[in-house]
Amino acid sequence: MEKNNYSQLVRTFQRLSRFSHLSAIAGWDMAAMMPAGGSTARGEALAELGVLQHQILTDTQVGSWLENARQENLSDDEQANLREMHLAYSQAALLPESLVEAKSLAGNRCEHAWRTQRKNNDWEGFAVNLKEVVRLSREEAKIRAEAAGSSPYDAMLNLYEPGMTSSRLDTLFADLKSWLPDLLQNVVEKQASQTLIDPQGPFPVEAQRELGLETMALLGFDFNGGRLDVSTHPFCGGVPEDVRITTRYDENDLLSALFGVIHETGHARYEQNLPRQWAGQPVAHARSMGVHESQSLFFEMQLGRSAAFLKHLLPGVKQRFGEQPAFTLDNFIAWSQRVERGFIRVDADEVSYPAHVILRYEIERALIDGDIEVDDIPALWDEKMQQYLGLSTKGNYRNGCMQDIHWTDGGFGYFPSYTLGAMYAAQLFQAARKALPALDAQLNEGNFAPLFGWLQQNIWQHGSRYSTSELIVKATGEDLNSRYFREHLTARYL
Amino acid sequence: MEKNNYSQLVRTFQRLSRFSHLSAIAGWDMAAMMPAGGSTARGEALAELGVLQHQILTDTQVGSWLENARQENLSDDEQANLREMHLAYSQAALLPESLVEAKSLAGNRCEHAWRTQRKNNDWEGFAVNLKEVVRLSREEAKIRAEAAGSSPYDAMLNLYEPGMTSSRLDTLFADLKSWLPDLLQNVVEKQASQTLIDPQGPFPVEAQRELGLETMALLGFDFNGGRLDVSTHPFCGGVPEDVRITTRYDENDLLSALFGVIHETGHARYEQNLPRQWAGQPVAHARSMGVHESQSLFFEMQLGRSAAFLKHLLPGVKQRFGEQPAFTLDNFIAWSQRVERGFIRVDADEVSYPAHVILRYEIERALIDGDIEVDDIPALWDEKMQQYLGLSTKGNYRNGCMQDIHWTDGGFGYFPSYTLGAMYAAQLFQAARKALPALDAQLNEGNFAPLFGWLQQNIWQHGSRYSTSELIVKATGEDLNSRYFREHLTARYL
Repeated sequence: MEKNNYSQLVRTFQRLSRFSHLSAIAGWDMAAMMPAGGSTARGEALAELGVLQHQILTDTQVGSWLENARQENLSDDEQANLREMHLAYSQAALLPESLVEAKSLAGNRCEHAWRTQRKNNDWEGFAVNLKEVVRLSREEAKIRAEAAGSSPYDAMLNLYEPGMTSSRLDTLFADLKSWLPDLLQNVVEKQASQTLIDPQGPFPVEAQRELGLETMALLGFDFNGGRLDVSTHPFCGGVPEDVRITTRYDENDLLSALFGVIHETGHARYEQNLPRQWAGQPVAHARSMGVHESQSLFFEMQLGRSAAFLKHLLPGVKQRFGEQPAFTLDNFIAWSQRVERGFIRVDADEVSYPAHVILRYEIERALIDGDIEVDDIPALWDEKMQQYLGLSTKGNYRNGCMQDIHWTDGGFGYFPSYTLGAMYAAQLFQAARKALPALDAQLNEGNFAPLFGWLQQNIWQHGSRYSTSELIVKATGEDLNSRYFREHLTARYL
Repeated sequence: MEKNNYSQLVRTFQRLSRFSHLSAIAGWDMAAMMPAGGSTARGEALAELGVLQHQILTDTQVGSWLENARQENLSDDEQANLREMHLAYSQAALLPESLVEAKSLAGNRCEHAWRTQRKNNDWEGFAVNLKEVVRLSREEAKIRAEAAGSSPYDAMLNLYEPGMTSSRLDTLFADLKSWLPDLLQNVVEKQASQTLIDPQGPFPVEAQRELGLETMALLGFDFNGGRLDVSTHPFCGGVPEDVRITTRYDENDLLSALFGVIHETGHARYEQNLPRQWAGQPVAHARSMGVHESQSLFFEMQLGRSAAFLKHLLPGVKQRFGEQPAFTLDNFIAWSQRVERGFIRVDADEVSYPAHVILRYEIERALIDGDIEVDDIPALWDEKMQQYLGLSTKGNYRNGCMQDIHWTDGGFGYFPSYTLGAMYAAQLFQAARKALPALDAQLNEGNFAPLFGWLQQNIWQHGSRYSTSELIVKATGEDLNSRYFREHLTARYL
């Protein structure tokens, strides 16, 4: 039986992928290279390509190819690819172009102004723009929800974590909320009695960069297919064949850039090892944002802050920054595993991080479902920060509800990915340990290859072939279970 | 009267310009940033966009808008824009897509293999690929020639220098050939009797880079709309709003990178000062490759290697590389104005450069017009090198007919631009001197703004509004005349 319709789809998605390649590189350039004066022209160029991509993807012809391809004789992989194509098509085709454009414009405006407004703690000014973004995001969520037969927020959540529901998140997060506050309190108390020696800076940027590159090499980053650069907000961009990760350097703070690099290297290795035989096809994409964060957190938290790994990281640190009292192995480990309640999500340790995410989840869900309004956010934020972390953000919008970029351009539904990722990561690490009886000894010797081989075998090579649930069950023997995250935190911190 | 057709064209060319923005940045990235492993995917992405751009530009709808817009009530500037649109359309629409694609593939293959073959001095291997490129270029030239009613070579020449003919080039180059060999001989003899002290390296890359950036600032480069980076072959890329220039550093050679930066800054200032009110439209493009080279050579040769400018460059050199016997002003000038017969075009001084260009012009013209074959090139190259520069390249393909990238991807017709540029530059400088009576005193004081203002007034702001001839006549009072180039060389070197 012929596969004409499927072949047309493959060609169409290959074309889209090539255009995405250009927009990914231009996007990376915008954050890492572009001088300020280029921003208007770049924004227009990327928007023009975005409109073209949307038109190609939502062409009615694509709809009929998708319909007809179901009758064709496809292999399992091809069927998985068709499923992912269908998802991309239906998510894009749902929205009228006018809404896509209006949301993009409102998002750009809000994000752009936010960069200054945040510095000025200007909630009033920010709220004006945010209301417009929320209005359009609610419109989007409503359309998606009607098509999916779900709540508005669940429809947005599915853009980042297909198959996830807020009812399942509620259960997972309720569990975290039942034990995490006590655990956090116990860890903070325990660490209060430990003496910790602060490393003495400055840590010159060039030496930090070299240490970052060396650490990436230690973690198996393929420099023939990627780079490390600098941007205000660290990220992992580019394309699987050419992955661009970024970090930022502070001469007074060694850990921040270093663990940023380790985190982004986790994202990067996932991208670099996605199934190349399906390159350009949706089935070759990373499974979900939660699974993506699971890889970065696997690298940063499960592996990167483990005593075994830190032991192999320390010699490079000493080589570049000299012998210091702070650079005994015990102190270096204690310093890398320090837990502190703070205002800022991106600076949070793995024990307090989930509180930041749950707070945002609860607020953004109520906002998209229409239960609260933008004006309610600051009070709710303060209330939940008090409740979960014992900190007041009253009047402190800058370090409160204005700290993140996500909502500025309408990325509602993304935040849960971080904590899903942390839970997946713990579960995956435990499964790897079970599958590799010598794992702890290997890590202790600095032999990380078996662990990466296990990730390659169980996660990376599958791309989007399976649903997230299927992927996790195949890799670990069971669906997502927060127990492993709890065990990990308990073992490491108590 | 309405301008519906013209408006449609404006929108179409704006769209094309936005896509060109992305391909310019991705092309810059390829040369300056991309790791080797990204090259296949990048090539495919750029080719996909190229096909799209070709389709948009050659759509029959564009043809009828162009036809109908002639009846519309257009301003002078709009008419100039329409003329340039028509040129772009007809140059693109002439060629069957199959030929465009075949030439692009053959060119990529030839260029890629050349990078290794040149190192290995492998003419036999190179000739195989080059024959295919020449075959397809002849096919292209024939189609263009039939449409233009010109010779095949003239049709290719017009892609880079619209309005230029080989018969005019013959006259210009015959003139150069009548006096330049003697002038070169006299300069070489004169310089042989001068003692020249070589600066002592190494010149650390970072200090060279800082000097380059400082020199760009001195030359008025707008860093809010551009960058300096590194690539194997220096170039000026990007877009007018965000110009990317590159250089390469050799720790043993200070002048090469420095004058490379000055050269590319000339290209860059032209791009940065093209008429922004027509941004994205063909009338806002640089006039021609010859005019583009005139700006880079104006900066590098007319201004950059003048005693007045070198005086202001020297303090920065000393500051970074210390006091040296070579860094007396006289020696620094002599060193920057050194003339030597050599094998390599890109390393040539301004006195011997035209010989390299005329040689290539004569060979490529005969090749495209079908008077010689690829197998004839090495002997002809050697013969002409002996004749023009007294050097033998027998068996030395690497430093002979295999040294340039231009022919590898079919860029026949480009070489004359360099010497046209040198002649335009000399004529423009003389006209500026006439228009600005205080110019020499200003330059001597390091006040370069009046000179740049004159270029802005007379060249940069006009984009492609006028033909090259009109532009040169408006700026200098007469059409291209090699006399000014001769006077410049005589005054500086004898």
